[in-house]
Amino acid sequence: MARVVVDVMLKPEILDPQGQAVQRALPRLGFDGISDVRQGKRFELEVDGPVDEAALARIHDLAESFLANTVIEDFTVHVDEVAEAAK
Amino acid sequence: MARVVVDVMLKPEILDPQGQAVQRALPRLGFDGISDVRQGKRFELEVDGPVDEAALARIHDLAESFLANTVIEDFTVHVDEVAEAAK
Repeated sequence: MARVVVDVMLKPEILDPQGQAVQRALPRLGFDGISDVRQGKRFELEVDGPVDEAALARIHDLAESFLANTVIEDFTVHVDEVAEAAK
Repeated sequence: MARVVVDVMLKPEILDPQGQAVQRALPRLGFDGISDVRQGKRFELEVDGPVDEAALARIHDLAESFLANTVIEDFTVHVDEVAEAAK
């Protein structure tokens, strides 16, 4: 079993109020030197069977049609190297 | 300027209803072979200045005290290699 990670982030041109709220709170909490924060979603999928090109293509379709709203969000699909190496 | 990523996921022993909802919907949508889905948060921090060990330690503290609820969530901090390589 392998783990595939789908990261979904708002596109750079889309306002991110959650990230802004975090960024503005940081100096108050004593953390300086962070000029921008963006908040997005991370999905960890446990895939049965081998993660070959066909499986990744399927997960790409899944992410595009279902996990991300591609009008306002970008996404990336990658195999979780840490989980792979721990086997 | 460098980008540091903080991934925050529910601990494995904590129930994840959002991830379960996604996982249960997948077969209906024609995607089989995914046995588990966990949903978490991804924060992208733009850091002024060099990202050395001290900066990463500061961001680790920030994530621990502010971005994650360490009672129910695990987090990882890493430099975004893709953003670094694109420079």
